[in-house]
Amino acid sequence: MKKLFILTSLLSSFAFAQIQKVEPMFWWKGMKNPELQILVYGKDVSKYNIELSDQIQIKDIQKTENPNYVFVTINTNQVNKSSFKINIKNKNKVVDSYTYELKERNPNSANRSSFSSKDVVYLIMPDRFANGDESNDSKKELIDKADRSIPDSRHGGDLRGIINNIDYLQNLGATAVWLTPVNEDNEKKHSYHGYAQTDLYKIDGRYGTNEEYRELSRELNKRGMYLIQDYVTNHWGISHWMIQDLPSQDWIHQFSPAEGGEAKGFKRSNYRTTTQMDVNASEIDKKGALNGWFDYTMPDINQANPLVLKYLTQNAIWWIEYAELGGMRVDTYPYNNKEGMATWVKAITNEYPNFNVVGEAWMYSPAHISYWQKDSKIAEMTGYNSNLPSIMDFTLFAEMPKAFNEEESWDKGMIKIYNSFTSDFLYPDVNNMFVFFENHDTERWNEIFNSDPKAYKLATTLIGTVRGIPQVYYGSEIGMRGDKNTGGDAAIRQDFPGGWKSDKQNAFTSTGRTAEQKEYHDFTAKVFNWRKNKEVIHTGKTKHYMPEKNVYVYFRYNANESVMVILNSNTEKQTFKLNRFAESINGFNSGKDIISDQVLPISSKGEITIEGKSSMIIELKM
Amino acid sequence: MKKLFILTSLLSSFAFAQIQKVEPMFWWKGMKNPELQILVYGKDVSKYNIELSDQIQIKDIQKTENPNYVFVTINTNQVNKSSFKINIKNKNKVVDSYTYELKERNPNSANRSSFSSKDVVYLIMPDRFANGDESNDSKKELIDKADRSIPDSRHGGDLRGIINNIDYLQNLGATAVWLTPVNEDNEKKHSYHGYAQTDLYKIDGRYGTNEEYRELSRELNKRGMYLIQDYVTNHWGISHWMIQDLPSQDWIHQFSPAEGGEAKGFKRSNYRTTTQMDVNASEIDKKGALNGWFDYTMPDINQANPLVLKYLTQNAIWWIEYAELGGMRVDTYPYNNKEGMATWVKAITNEYPNFNVVGEAWMYSPAHISYWQKDSKIAEMTGYNSNLPSIMDFTLFAEMPKAFNEEESWDKGMIKIYNSFTSDFLYPDVNNMFVFFENHDTERWNEIFNSDPKAYKLATTLIGTVRGIPQVYYGSEIGMRGDKNTGGDAAIRQDFPGGWKSDKQNAFTSTGRTAEQKEYHDFTAKVFNWRKNKEVIHTGKTKHYMPEKNVYVYFRYNANESVMVILNSNTEKQTFKLNRFAESINGFNSGKDIISDQVLPISSKGEITIEGKSSMIIELKM
Repeated sequence: MKKLFILTSLLSSFAFAQIQKVEPMFWWKGMKNPELQILVYGKDVSKYNIELSDQIQIKDIQKTENPNYVFVTINTNQVNKSSFKINIKNKNKVVDSYTYELKERNPNSANRSSFSSKDVVYLIMPDRFANGDESNDSKKELIDKADRSIPDSRHGGDLRGIINNIDYLQNLGATAVWLTPVNEDNEKKHSYHGYAQTDLYKIDGRYGTNEEYRELSRELNKRGMYLIQDYVTNHWGISHWMIQDLPSQDWIHQFSPAEGGEAKGFKRSNYRTTTQMDVNASEIDKKGALNGWFDYTMPDINQANPLVLKYLTQNAIWWIEYAELGGMRVDTYPYNNKEGMATWVKAITNEYPNFNVVGEAWMYSPAHISYWQKDSKIAEMTGYNSNLPSIMDFTLFAEMPKAFNEEESWDKGMIKIYNSFTSDFLYPDVNNMFVFFENHDTERWNEIFNSDPKAYKLATTLIGTVRGIPQVYYGSEIGMRGDKNTGGDAAIRQDFPGGWKSDKQNAFTSTGRTAEQKEYHDFTAKVFNWRKNKEVIHTGKTKHYMPEKNVYVYFRYNANESVMVILNSNTEKQTFKLNRFAESINGFNSGKDIISDQVLPISSKGEITIEGKSSMIIELKM
Repeated sequence: MKKLFILTSLLSSFAFAQIQKVEPMFWWKGMKNPELQILVYGKDVSKYNIELSDQIQIKDIQKTENPNYVFVTINTNQVNKSSFKINIKNKNKVVDSYTYELKERNPNSANRSSFSSKDVVYLIMPDRFANGDESNDSKKELIDKADRSIPDSRHGGDLRGIINNIDYLQNLGATAVWLTPVNEDNEKKHSYHGYAQTDLYKIDGRYGTNEEYRELSRELNKRGMYLIQDYVTNHWGISHWMIQDLPSQDWIHQFSPAEGGEAKGFKRSNYRTTTQMDVNASEIDKKGALNGWFDYTMPDINQANPLVLKYLTQNAIWWIEYAELGGMRVDTYPYNNKEGMATWVKAITNEYPNFNVVGEAWMYSPAHISYWQKDSKIAEMTGYNSNLPSIMDFTLFAEMPKAFNEEESWDKGMIKIYNSFTSDFLYPDVNNMFVFFENHDTERWNEIFNSDPKAYKLATTLIGTVRGIPQVYYGSEIGMRGDKNTGGDAAIRQDFPGGWKSDKQNAFTSTGRTAEQKEYHDFTAKVFNWRKNKEVIHTGKTKHYMPEKNVYVYFRYNANESVMVILNSNTEKQTFKLNRFAESINGFNSGKDIISDQVLPISSKGEITIEGKSSMIIELKM
């Protein structure tokens, strides 16, 4: 051992360049943007000459203050072969070499389809869903080991577990799957959530391999379903190899002690992202929001640095092309440099014109949310266009638990839901918004409503029938709960029952579900499976009516179809006359409630009775 | 008596046309719009021929389903003399005649100035402010009589009372006076509030005369102050002579019994004016909001009827020209036909390009409020432009009492004030917004805060120093209170002490004020008098900083001046470092707090101490 050590030291003192990383590891021919920037990482690599084989020209070469990095830009259109060599030369001697591959693209890759309002998105935390491969629960090279007895530890869920349960998802009515990040997150603690990524080109070994990730995507695609990648531009894990050996100090945001910075330039974000649009905001607050770190283990990435932005852009395109993705979800969207992000999204949608990207802009004012959607007239007021096609309806999310919990008054109860839709005119594309009542960061709906299936059914009816893209959080459909207030994040990220061999109960199968789970599940499956082919729900217009007695009625309609949705949040059964809805029901004679399967007479002279705390979805018939 | 009765009956059975009303009663030469539509009212007048003297041509004559009305349009440019005759002819015989006067305009009338962010607006309910003329407390011809012992009755306040106290207003720092409506309101009850007008061309006799109204305006103008008229387009009193003998059934909105209409076509408004912009709104809800009545005594006027709109337009211009007004406030703005109102405002500002009109758009979403301001990009999304220059900041109004009452947390306390300004970019003209913490329809601030002068001073500092036009409600400045929840509207509209001879106490005079009243008053006078010449407050930019420990700091600045405002809503004294504000204080060395008159050293290396629940307004000096 000692000998070897001496030898290594000697070699490194000679500083002969050894290529340690090349990213992207490979690329494709025939991309719309033929330019490719290749990162070459190795000890003092920038001190050497870099040459490409086959007389391929280097269009640009960029070096940073750290001699271990070189960024080489080429025009891939100049490459005729399927690979070429990157040679590191000391004077005229090649000291190291990397064979760079340019693969063939899948046919129609550029024009791939993507998730839309036709879909229902199912959100999974992979560590907590299903353990399909026990051999990868812990990995020698990865610090955080599996231990299901510890809520915040890793539990062993993986890609194989998801692949094994695609039929379950499909039968539930889900048509797209959003996984929280599955790239390597080699932090010591809480690595299961994946938001502190340590390798952006590698699936975490405890979830599986890059190949298995692509397999999942292909299995979904076979069924007309989409895999949505959770992409984190805002921060990386502090153990990321590039953070450990920064290409440049401005690769991340760092705060000096005078600016309140702690160790390694850490300063916590002030989380006030309204500073992105607030014309009155001070620079220090803006900087505090955008450049501050999300947490100690998450250095804040500087998307204003062109090398960083190019790295993030190519990485995203690499995953889309490699894993045949059907969409992306971008984490903490407004915490990023917004001009950088507009460029990032534009580069992706330039390459894949039908590709959908949804950003997490967690704000409550519709105008502030609208700001982040592509072609927003509101953003235009400040001269901005995010290019981001899809956003999340946090206004509706915030109002739902209040609305369904309150008795009616001027501003309480179902009027809150009604009110949230009065701002729809502010959004450039109201159909391209996630509608949801929970996700991996929020209180569980079934916890708030103390396992009341009626409340769950009301909420599911709502997100299943309003404009937008319904998003379900795993386990919600079997009544899973857990109190974030007392149990922290782990409480809302518990294991799906049946995902582990040792589980006593298996909610993935109809026979394995308890009566209560079955009630939640079957309602969910009924609504979302019905929704699958309902163009009137996907893209129809909405007409809604002021709630009365806490009953909210709206219609989704187009030239061919009309659906009447009734949400009775009143605890009492309600009977009401239909004449108020004449403008929406004239011309129809009957309707089928797809929840009860009952056919009802429909006439502006008639009336309807609905049970307390229940919903109806009525397909109107001539 | 009997004989006379028979004679009258005989005459009316002959139905000979007698002109009972001509409106406008007179007009002016040289208006930008030379067209004038004259309403002639008389028994069966439409059955007669109408001719004008001096060969003046009738450009258009319009009749309605009611034969008692004729609307005659002329081009005033064709009139060379100062008057002409309107002749009612039966065949060739003139049966009645009206001498129509065209007056000379005041020089520079068209270019009159108007209230702006340079001003402080003082809102008065004239019946409750000061009784300057006891002889008009009750009038034989007006039903509702004065009785100060009844809270909802008339109390005798009048225009003379206001004229007598202009010095008081001026010394307080007010530069514009908004009176709730003073036109005749001859309803049986609650006539003191004036919002059920029964004659749009006549000051209510219990307030005084048209001449006294103009006298008030002229007295204000002499001091560089403005009179702002409260204009009600949305509804008239049910006893209005035109409502009693409708020109046409569509002069007002009427609901049939099948539509839920009650007697006289009454149906209460649903008050959901978001229907004006909501692309999902149903027609029935929209109609319910806009066409529904505000109350039984307030028939809803149809501004979509061109004759109605012309009547309202000419009436408004008549008052501006006659009474030499300095502005208008429009009641219940979003309850009107919005296209009609856009035309109405445009006609006024076309005639008086510098004239300011503020609309009451009582909504809480900044985007919804912005919708109503001229050239709003948000309204443009639905193809609308209100033309209305000024709006009211109901968001700030709603947040203030909560903010100043709460301890700090992520979303509580002063962050609510901060947040309300994060939407400033949504407004086309943020300086042209009323900022206020109470008016004649809201709870009294001093009631909410249980006569705590500290809370009042914080609120007054805020509205006195942020962008916009501060609006004060009479009596607030001497700590007046009264609980709307228990006492209804009368509780927030009590008599100003000293306005009546019999009052034991006179808060109009310095010596008459109690120590407590003096504290409120003197603070108000200090802030608003200081504000008078502070261009940096009137039109400066704003830079604000996230509150810390419930202390909110913002700067108003322009090329020449900078003012630092500190609001400490924390009950404890706070000392904080100034380095956080470096970008706003660099270049300055000291500052004078205009509240304490103290001079403080200012440096980004220094700190400031501020008492609990108090404010500082620091003029920065080089």
